[in-house]
Amino acid sequence: MIYDVIIVGSGPAGLSAAIYAVRAQLSVLVLEKEYMSGGQMLNTYEVDNYPGLPGIGGFELGVKFREHAEKLGVKFINIEVRHIGEEEEGRVKVLYTNREEFRARALVLAMGARHSSLGVPGEKELAGMGVSYCATCDGAFFKGRTVAVVGGGDAAVEDALFLARGCEKVYLVHRRDELRAARLLQENLKKCGNVEFIWDSEVTAIRGEEQVECAVIRNKKSGTERVLDLDGVFIAVGMKPNTEIITNILQLDKNGYICASEDGITEKPGIFAAGDIRTKHLRQIVTAVSDGANVISSVETYLEGML
Amino acid sequence: MIYDVIIVGSGPAGLSAAIYAVRAQLSVLVLEKEYMSGGQMLNTYEVDNYPGLPGIGGFELGVKFREHAEKLGVKFINIEVRHIGEEEEGRVKVLYTNREEFRARALVLAMGARHSSLGVPGEKELAGMGVSYCATCDGAFFKGRTVAVVGGGDAAVEDALFLARGCEKVYLVHRRDELRAARLLQENLKKCGNVEFIWDSEVTAIRGEEQVECAVIRNKKSGTERVLDLDGVFIAVGMKPNTEIITNILQLDKNGYICASEDGITEKPGIFAAGDIRTKHLRQIVTAVSDGANVISSVETYLEGML
Repeated sequence: MIYDVIIVGSGPAGLSAAIYAVRAQLSVLVLEKEYMSGGQMLNTYEVDNYPGLPGIGGFELGVKFREHAEKLGVKFINIEVRHIGEEEEGRVKVLYTNREEFRARALVLAMGARHSSLGVPGEKELAGMGVSYCATCDGAFFKGRTVAVVGGGDAAVEDALFLARGCEKVYLVHRRDELRAARLLQENLKKCGNVEFIWDSEVTAIRGEEQVECAVIRNKKSGTERVLDLDGVFIAVGMKPNTEIITNILQLDKNGYICASEDGITEKPGIFAAGDIRTKHLRQIVTAVSDGANVISSVETYLEGML
Repeated sequence: MIYDVIIVGSGPAGLSAAIYAVRAQLSVLVLEKEYMSGGQMLNTYEVDNYPGLPGIGGFELGVKFREHAEKLGVKFINIEVRHIGEEEEGRVKVLYTNREEFRARALVLAMGARHSSLGVPGEKELAGMGVSYCATCDGAFFKGRTVAVVGGGDAAVEDALFLARGCEKVYLVHRRDELRAARLLQENLKKCGNVEFIWDSEVTAIRGEEQVECAVIRNKKSGTERVLDLDGVFIAVGMKPNTEIITNILQLDKNGYICASEDGITEKPGIFAAGDIRTKHLRQIVTAVSDGANVISSVETYLEGML
């Protein structure tokens, strides 16, 4: 069988694309590495910025998205895509997996991205319980509290600025003695009365019963350690798109994301990208869900021979 | 008081922007012409493509969005904006209304758009009960049924193609004897075995108890009328953005929408656009909600002096 469209990844972008595809009467299949493999929201304790469902649990929201797609008749197969090929001069795309092969006239790549982690004790255990990788998502939960941001790039400084507006106190922990972030962002942050910079330092452990209580900070030059009382730790040391299977096929931007705008169109006819995996400024559930709708509109145009 | 940001319009784009703004600790105010004035979803019978809330009523979804914003502390004022001015070399925007004036450092325009109507008996009464202005939104409800599409442009033909994949029979009713739509779209549509063209004709009435049962079609050349049994009527005769208050301020595209990409940035510093009012391909609740998030990210960047 040749499907109209196969979607790789089942986070919010992939699930939204599946909903739009099936409602457009396209034959559609979703391939996922693991259950909701593209879904970072599964590891999110609380989501308060998906309009209409205030304060919902991340896992619960993921299940709701999936049930919505299943209710409309979307089929899922749990399988790992190894690489992508073409047949019939590119009119048919082939997905090679660890078992069988799948064919479709169009592909939607929605494998998402993952936040880089520090890899320190307590980080994984307290994820969603004070450890966060997204200030835009979780910052509002820390109003009036004390938090640390770890990192020195634009994302870290933007997160610190965001948090400084609502938090009692924000520490910026950076392993060097200067920031990589844009000069103006740095100046704005230095003007904030409630931000303290901790230079040449790294977090070596995050501690707490049930939620973050403190972090151990080690000065890399002196080797001394201090314990910082904290309600939250925001880790902003980078993000990595899950593009392993397509690095030889598609153009990637300098950070490794697929070059595609909101329509999801890549330079390769019939291959589309949606969600965190593409070049975009704001990686949120709402922007991923929007991508899923837009990308199917582009797939329809492509299948009509108009792209 | 000078707000950080004032949002004009309270449809899904405006409400999402309000949620993101208040969670970013910005001082925010929403001005709305009437209760959820920007919200076309209020007139939608059922929404089945907002992931996580399958088959929800449009009004109910609108209320959920608004309650979400209110729960987070967003303030709404029911007032009609007349025009927009600037003070302090553009650093302060002023909104003049039929009563007082409001000031903010940034503005988000989210007044939405409206579908052009036929203005025939039964159209308004049966809206959401078989009369639809959006095949992408409602087409899936008509699987295996008989529908008519009214119009002759790209949107009408795209709608007819979309519907032809799932409906038993699709009539395309157009007032001229040829379509304005792109040639290839026309050819694709003519290949569909279940599509019948009704040329030189207009719908003069839509009839039905509780839901659409038939439409009266008048041939403009002969003057003869026929009654077409139908389950749905999709009206695709154009859309008009609600840009009355800003026509002299911002650049509009050839269809009258504000020129802005997914970041919502317009050519005027401090004035942003989100939702149906901006240039975009797909006008859906999910794309509006995404715009709301993206636009606040741009507002934050602007308020930091980085735009």
